[in-house]
Amino acid sequence: MTSTEADHRLDDVIEESGVDAYLQFDDSSDVNHRYVTGFEASDAFGYLRYDSESILLVAPLEKGRAEKESNADTIRSTTEFVNDDVRDNITAEAKVLGKFVADYGIDHLGVSRDFDLYFAEQLESEGIEVKTVRDVIMEARTQKSESELESLATAQSITEQAMVYAESIIRESEVVDGILHYENEVLTAERLRIELRQFLMDKQCSLDEAIVACGRLAADPHDVGSGPLEADEPILFDIYPQHESGFWGDMSRTFVKGTPPSEFIHMYQATLDAFEAALGILEEGAGVTGAKVHNKVCDVFEEAGYETIRDGDIDEGFLHSTGHAIGLELHEPPRLVGESGELSTGTVLTVEPGLYIQDYGGVRIEDMVVVEKDGYRNLNDFHYDWEL
Amino acid sequence: MTSTEADHRLDDVIEESGVDAYLQFDDSSDVNHRYVTGFEASDAFGYLRYDSESILLVAPLEKGRAEKESNADTIRSTTEFVNDDVRDNITAEAKVLGKFVADYGIDHLGVSRDFDLYFAEQLESEGIEVKTVRDVIMEARTQKSESELESLATAQSITEQAMVYAESIIRESEVVDGILHYENEVLTAERLRIELRQFLMDKQCSLDEAIVACGRLAADPHDVGSGPLEADEPILFDIYPQHESGFWGDMSRTFVKGTPPSEFIHMYQATLDAFEAALGILEEGAGVTGAKVHNKVCDVFEEAGYETIRDGDIDEGFLHSTGHAIGLELHEPPRLVGESGELSTGTVLTVEPGLYIQDYGGVRIEDMVVVEKDGYRNLNDFHYDWEL
Repeated sequence: MTSTEADHRLDDVIEESGVDAYLQFDDSSDVNHRYVTGFEASDAFGYLRYDSESILLVAPLEKGRAEKESNADTIRSTTEFVNDDVRDNITAEAKVLGKFVADYGIDHLGVSRDFDLYFAEQLESEGIEVKTVRDVIMEARTQKSESELESLATAQSITEQAMVYAESIIRESEVVDGILHYENEVLTAERLRIELRQFLMDKQCSLDEAIVACGRLAADPHDVGSGPLEADEPILFDIYPQHESGFWGDMSRTFVKGTPPSEFIHMYQATLDAFEAALGILEEGAGVTGAKVHNKVCDVFEEAGYETIRDGDIDEGFLHSTGHAIGLELHEPPRLVGESGELSTGTVLTVEPGLYIQDYGGVRIEDMVVVEKDGYRNLNDFHYDWEL
Repeated sequence: MTSTEADHRLDDVIEESGVDAYLQFDDSSDVNHRYVTGFEASDAFGYLRYDSESILLVAPLEKGRAEKESNADTIRSTTEFVNDDVRDNITAEAKVLGKFVADYGIDHLGVSRDFDLYFAEQLESEGIEVKTVRDVIMEARTQKSESELESLATAQSITEQAMVYAESIIRESEVVDGILHYENEVLTAERLRIELRQFLMDKQCSLDEAIVACGRLAADPHDVGSGPLEADEPILFDIYPQHESGFWGDMSRTFVKGTPPSEFIHMYQATLDAFEAALGILEEGAGVTGAKVHNKVCDVFEEAGYETIRDGDIDEGFLHSTGHAIGLELHEPPRLVGESGELSTGTVLTVEPGLYIQDYGGVRIEDMVVVEKDGYRNLNDFHYDWEL
């Protein structure tokens, strides 16, 4: 089995920390654990990095599947260390972990920062010294591999298809007394979310939530939207499904059916200018700082007459960060904020400037990009027109 | 604010453990944390039990909501302990926790078993002794309050409505060449799952998965089912949605459209007998052991000529536990297995005997019951006929 990026970094951190080995124990709802092991299981399982080898400790029923699906070099069953199935009993689990680690003659053990204190106490009572080591897993996750980039591109492509679908529904809707009607029914935010959920489910994506916020509701970036969609008002879509690969899509657009207030047109143009300016900075490629991207966006908004998050606690204007990294989690570090450091090749980011004004609503434009050595690659290919 | 059942138990465990206070720090995806605090937030927040008071430590933006929604007596903002928003930075979080705990003059701190080792290390480096205490939260969760029983009854009632709906679809289907057709299309497991998901979503329940397994597929209790549903074959439904209250429903039935193999009828009768025998034991009420319930089920299956999990590693027969407690998690302790202890008043359990035979498929019957002082209360009211 080839060692992964995470394995190599763990070998380095074992060396640097003066420990004999590195242990994680969790179920695969812990994203770092799933990432390092390449294995999914709802019961907790162990991962040990020792002597440049990866060893998985799983329940007996999971052994066959772990041999097929995981990244590990060796799979061991908990039955080697007890006579019983140990799930659901934390004390039994601690005993198994103790025997497992002792089997390799490990005295000094490095663990992840979120390692359960109870397990550490139990291992220490058996003479094993336990301490946390530097978190290199998140560092590894930030630099996407080729196959991870493909998975993200797939997730974002499906997300874009959902945006095309959302746009087509707005486009095909008829306006009756200022309210959008679709298939002879009032078109609500709730109905559109159900349509999007169904559309995405058919493409192996799950959608827990999506923002479909019309008019003033969209002035609060946390309002997911509700009720009938109206003509002549901005409708903000932010669609963020998770693909069955585990990777997320995330994309926003703002549309208007009809004639928006002239202030909206000003807001939209400022947001599009800020968006393009952010991409302009990202053309510098790896090494440019996230702060430079974010500050450029703030500059553009401020020149257009809006307040930004740089001004401190504000109620209107550009209220949030310029974007965030994305992968097996929807929001991963780094974020594009005033303190962001240099961006690395292979980091995947959303770029999502937006404006929020109580009397008019919200505008947000969001694509997903890959930072490359000499520039960036946009994973989206969708127009930037608001007019439907 | 009235102290909750969990608060009282924590006061006892603080006393018993010789610590000054008890701390949890997590986001509300940790069910125990959500249960103790009554608060939901995607960023981690703190809960301190000190001097018979509950104190919440939240991000500044969450303070107002925490004051309205949480169980705590006092809400404090992280900005009291730093000048910055600390989310996304574990070292900053550790510093805030240290200052927060020190503000109460706490030297000896009890924490939950899953407390992050990294936080313990940081607190100890500031002179605070940290150790885990006995897990009394899960104990409290096992004894449902009146309002929790109402929430579970609601979740299970909606689950039963979904079962009524599933049954009606099978009933209304037409058989063409041995395959079920519904609304002029082949009726597949996938289609039925989509129908169930939509039905439950309209009733404020989310359904990640449901078993709709036809024929031999149902012989594997972990197969969720796929493909066209057939006449003259058992169709096993296991529906387990989560209500917006956080509580779960869980219910199983097995139907046949047409004429099943005679072996199925034998399997079904044995399962129904085992189910009724389990309820017969539960009539003894609180104090009866889960083991007695499970062993009675095994007795009935063995008398009917089937192997059971009591016989060790078996491939066919009664392959799993008789049931499990349920609440804010789908599977909670205790399980109804051979080693189960005495059941308490207010514990809510599934009772779900089943039989799995490679050549014929699977049968499972599952209701949800509340253990009461002198008996039990069945939260279901749905027939036990397989014939549609």
